[in-house]
Amino acid sequence: MDDPISPKPHAQWRTRLHEVIFEADTTVGKAFDVLLIVSITASVLAVMLESVAGIREHHGTLLYAIEWFFTILFTIEYFLRLICIGRPLRYATSFFGVVDLLAVIPTYLDLLIPGTHFLFVIRVLRLLRVFRVLKLVPYVGEANTLLLAMKASRRKIIIFLFAVFTIVIILGSSMYVIEGEEHGFTSIPRSLYWAIVTLTTVGYSDISPKTGVGQALAAMLMILGYGIIAVPTGIVTSEMVRGREKRVTTQACPQCSSEGHDMDAKYCKHCGEPLHL
Amino acid sequence: MDDPISPKPHAQWRTRLHEVIFEADTTVGKAFDVLLIVSITASVLAVMLESVAGIREHHGTLLYAIEWFFTILFTIEYFLRLICIGRPLRYATSFFGVVDLLAVIPTYLDLLIPGTHFLFVIRVLRLLRVFRVLKLVPYVGEANTLLLAMKASRRKIIIFLFAVFTIVIILGSSMYVIEGEEHGFTSIPRSLYWAIVTLTTVGYSDISPKTGVGQALAAMLMILGYGIIAVPTGIVTSEMVRGREKRVTTQACPQCSSEGHDMDAKYCKHCGEPLHL
Amino acid sequence: MDDPISPKPHAQWRTRLHEVIFEADTTVGKAFDVLLIVSITASVLAVMLESVAGIREHHGTLLYAIEWFFTILFTIEYFLRLICIGRPLRYATSFFGVVDLLAVIPTYLDLLIPGTHFLFVIRVLRLLRVFRVLKLVPYVGEANTLLLAMKASRRKIIIFLFAVFTIVIILGSSMYVIEGEEHGFTSIPRSLYWAIVTLTTVGYSDISPKTGVGQALAAMLMILGYGIIAVPTGIVTSEMVRGREKRVTTQACPQCSSEGHDMDAKYCKHCGEPLHL
Amino acid sequence: MDDPISPKPHAQWRTRLHEVIFEADTTVGKAFDVLLIVSITASVLAVMLESVAGIREHHGTLLYAIEWFFTILFTIEYFLRLICIGRPLRYATSFFGVVDLLAVIPTYLDLLIPGTHFLFVIRVLRLLRVFRVLKLVPYVGEANTLLLAMKASRRKIIIFLFAVFTIVIILGSSMYVIEGEEHGFTSIPRSLYWAIVTLTTVGYSDISPKTGVGQALAAMLMILGYGIIAVPTGIVTSEMVRGREKRVTTQACPQCSSEGHDMDAKYCKHCGEPLHL
Repeated sequence: MDDPISPKPHAQWRTRLHEVIFEADTTVGKAFDVLLIVSITASVLAVMLESVAGIREHHGTLLYAIEWFFTILFTIEYFLRLICIGRPLRYATSFFGVVDLLAVIPTYLDLLIPGTHFLFVIRVLRLLRVFRVLKLVPYVGEANTLLLAMKASRRKIIIFLFAVFTIVIILGSSMYVIEGEEHGFTSIPRSLYWAIVTLTTVGYSDISPKTGVGQALAAMLMILGYGIIAVPTGIVTSEMVRGREKRVTTQACPQCSSEGHDMDAKYCKHCGEPLHL
Repeated sequence: MDDPISPKPHAQWRTRLHEVIFEADTTVGKAFDVLLIVSITASVLAVMLESVAGIREHHGTLLYAIEWFFTILFTIEYFLRLICIGRPLRYATSFFGVVDLLAVIPTYLDLLIPGTHFLFVIRVLRLLRVFRVLKLVPYVGEANTLLLAMKASRRKIIIFLFAVFTIVIILGSSMYVIEGEEHGFTSIPRSLYWAIVTLTTVGYSDISPKTGVGQALAAMLMILGYGIIAVPTGIVTSEMVRGREKRVTTQACPQCSSEGHDMDAKYCKHCGEPLHL
Repeated sequence: MDDPISPKPHAQWRTRLHEVIFEADTTVGKAFDVLLIVSITASVLAVMLESVAGIREHHGTLLYAIEWFFTILFTIEYFLRLICIGRPLRYATSFFGVVDLLAVIPTYLDLLIPGTHFLFVIRVLRLLRVFRVLKLVPYVGEANTLLLAMKASRRKIIIFLFAVFTIVIILGSSMYVIEGEEHGFTSIPRSLYWAIVTLTTVGYSDISPKTGVGQALAAMLMILGYGIIAVPTGIVTSEMVRGREKRVTTQACPQCSSEGHDMDAKYCKHCGEPLHL
Repeated sequence: MDDPISPKPHAQWRTRLHEVIFEADTTVGKAFDVLLIVSITASVLAVMLESVAGIREHHGTLLYAIEWFFTILFTIEYFLRLICIGRPLRYATSFFGVVDLLAVIPTYLDLLIPGTHFLFVIRVLRLLRVFRVLKLVPYVGEANTLLLAMKASRRKIIIFLFAVFTIVIILGSSMYVIEGEEHGFTSIPRSLYWAIVTLTTVGYSDISPKTGVGQALAAMLMILGYGIIAVPTGIVTSEMVRGREKRVTTQACPQCSSEGHDMDAKYCKHCGEPLHL
C-alpha cells in the first residue's frame, strides 16, 4: 500500500498510524472506526443516563468510572491524532479537531474548577465525531448527494428563510397589538416565538389567540405555514431530481487531513501531498 | 392449471389446497382471500370493542364467543397452511408464519395461564396478515413501486435519520441545561423526547420552554424541523420520478412459499420448484 | 349559437334557459354564475353568523329574513333547472341535483317539523354548489390536472393509507397496554385517536404519554409520521411532473347535463345529443 | 457610466443620486444598500426590545432616542428618493413608496396625537424595505425562480385553497353540531378556527373534540390534512423541476423606477427611458 512516489522522510509508523486512525480502507482502519463508534455511543449514553435522577443516585459511582474511562481513552486518541498528522496545528484548529478537544475537556475542568459540572452537556458533542467515521464506504456518496442538493439550493433556501422571518415578524408583531399582554402575548419577541410555533405547525398551546380577530389572523398564518412548506420541499426535490451522485474517495490527506478528494485524485488538492491510494 | 413439467409425487389435494390458501389467481383462491380479510377485520374490531369499558360490560359474553370463534378458525387455517406447504418448517419460521401463530396464541395462553390477559393486544397483529392478501392483483405492482423507491433511497434515509438524531441529542441536551428541571426538562432522555416532539412539529404542550433563551433555541429547532422535512420528501420523490414499475407475479412457490417472482418466471428462483402458472 | 344539426322539438326558451343556467360561455350565463357565487357565499355567511350567540340575539330577525330570501331564491332556481333540462330525473338524482335539493330543504323542514333546527347546518353544503360554477374557464384545466394526478395515483394512495392504518392500530393498541387507563388511554379506539393525532403531527395535548416506555414509542411514531409524509408527497409530485394538462370544454349536455366533454366533441359522449358549441 | 444616448436635461447630481439610492451596481450604491439593511435591522430590533416590559423600564430613554434617530434618517432618505426620481408621484404611490412612508409616520403621529402609540407596531413594516435591497446580485435570479414557480401554479393553488376551505367549512360546521357549545365549539366561526388548526396539523389544544363521533371526524380531518399537503408540494415541485431560471438585471428605470428588466435591455420597457447600463 506504500506509495513509491511519496518518499518523504516521516517515520513509517506515523504513516501506518495515520492509516489506522484517519482512514477506513484497511482492515485495521475499519476495526478502529467501528471501535470508535461503539465508544462514542456508549459514552454519550452514559452522559444521558447520568442526567436521570433515579439512575444517578443508584449507579453514580459506576457512571463516574465509565466517564473517566472514556475521557482517558479519547484523550489518548486525541494525542495520537496530533502525533501522526503532518500538520498538527492545522488538525487542532479544524472542525473535528476542536470537537475532539471539546469531547474531553469538560471532565478535566470539572475536576480542576468545582462548579463547572453544568458543562458536562458539552460532552454530547462527541456524537459529532461519528460523522467523521461515516467515511465508511459507501455512505459518503449518499451524504454528498444530499449536501450537494442543499448547497446548490443555498440561495433559494436563504431567500425562503428571509421570507419566513418577514411573515413571522409582521404577523407576530400584529398579534402583540391585537391580543395584548392579557392573553399571553406579553412582548414582541414572545409573539414572534408564538408565530414561529404556529407557522411551523408545531402548535404548542402555551400561548394561543383568544380574540376573534386574533384567531382569524392565526388561521391565516397556519394556512400560510401549511402552504409554504411546499417551497423548501420543491427546492430540495428539484435539485435531487436533477442531481447526479458525485462519488468521492474516503482518503484523507496524510499531510493536512483535508477530505473530499475525487476518485481519481493522486495528490491532495489542497497541499499537493501524494495520497495513499 | 396442472404443470406437466412438475410430476413430483405430492398429493393432488395438497397442490389444490396450496392454490386456494396461498394464491389468488383462481376463483376459489380469491374467495378464500376475501373471506380471510373479512375475518381478520371482524376479529380485530372485536379486540378493539372489548377494550371499551361500556361495551365490555354489556356484550362481554358475545365478544368472548366471537374471540374463540375466530381463534379456532385461524388455528385450523394455520394447520392447513402447515400441511399443504412443501417445507412446513420454513413457513413456520417465516415472517407471516410467525404472525399467523402470534394471532392465535394469546387466546389459548389466557385460558392456560391466568393473568396473561394483557397479551390480548398481540391479537391486533392479525392485521398484518392482510398484507399477505394484498397479493390480490393489481396492488402488488403499486406496493412494489413504493417499496423499491424506499429501498433505493435506504442509505440516504439512514443518513437523514442519523442527522436528525444528532440534532435532537445536541439541542435536547442543551435544553436540559438551559431550562432545567423546574421547567419540566427533568432529564436528558426527557429533553430528547421534547426535542423529537418539537422537531417533528407534533408539538404536545406537556413540556414547553419557559425561558427566553430556551424559546429562542426551540424556535430554531422548529424551523429546522419545518425545513428538513424537505429532505425525506426530496429523496422519495426523486426516486419515484426516476422509478419504473416492475411488475411481479402473484404466484407463491408451492415448495418454499417464497414470493416476488417475475411475470415470466417458470421456476422458483429460490428452490427451483416449478411454479403453477 | 343555434345548432342546425339539432332540430329536436323542445322549446327555444328552454334551450336558452339551459344556456344561462347550466353553462358559462355566454355573457348572460357568466353573469348568472357570478350572481350564484355571490348568493351562495352570502347565504353560507348568514348561516355562520347565526351560530354566533351575540349576533343571533341582536340580528336574529334580519338573519331569519335573509335565510328565507335565499331559500326561496334557490328553490326557484332548483325548479328552473328541473324545467330546462332534457332529463329532469337524471339531474335530480345526480350529485349536484341532490346538493341543490339539500340546500333548501332544512329551512322548510324547520317550519314544518319543530325541533329539526339542528339540521340547519346542512345548509352549508350549499358551498359545494360553487364547484359547479368553477366551470368558468380557465380553472377547469387546472382542476382536472390535479384530479388526474390524484386518480392516477389512486392505488398507491390506498396502499399508503392502509399502511398508515396498520401502524396506527398496532402502535395505538400497544400504547393502550403500556400507558393504561390512568394516563388517559382509556380504550383502544381512544388510543387509535391518539395515534392518529400523533402520526399526523397534529399533536393535541389532551392525551399524551406519561411513562418512559410510552414516550419512547410515541417518539418512534412521531419520526415515522414525520418521515412517511414523504410518500403521498412523492406520489402526487411524480404524477404531476409526468402529467400533461388535458383540457376539456365547459359545455354541459343540454339533454343529460353530463360534463367533461373533449374540446373537439360535437355530440354528448353519454347520450349522443348534439352540444351547443 | 454616463449614457450618451440619454441627453435629457435633468440635473447630473440627480442621476448620480438615483444611482446611489435606487441601484446596486456601483460601489457607493452597494455601500448605501448595506447601510440601509443595517439601519432597518437595528430599528426593527429597537421596536421589538421596546415591547419587552423589563427593557422598556430600564432603557426607555435610549430606545426613544434610537427611534427618533432612525425616523429622521428614514425621513431624509424618503425625501431624497422623491427628489432624485423622474416621476415622484409614481414612486410615492408604488408599493415601496407607501412602505417607505408608513415606516416613518407612526413616530410623528405619536408626537402629534397622543394615544396613537399602539400604531408603533406599523414600524416593523420597515422590514419589507429590505426586499428592495435584495436586488444585490445574485439573489434576484433565485427569488425570481421561486416567484415564477408560484405564479405559474397560481390557479392550481387557488383551486387547492378553495378545496381546503370547503373541507374546513363543511367539517367545521358539522363539529359545531356534533360537539356543541359545552365542548368549546361555541359557534361555527370558532369551529372553523378549530378545523383550520387541525387540518394544517398545528394542533393547539385550546379546543379539542370530546365525544367519540367528534374524535372520529377529527381523525378523518387530520388524515386529510396530512395527505393533501402533498398537493401544494406537488404543484410547486413540478413547476420547479420544469422551470428554468430567468435572470433579470438589477437596474431600476431612472424615470419610472420600474424593475425586472431583461439582462440585455437598453431602454425601460415601461416608459422608454434609457437605462444606466
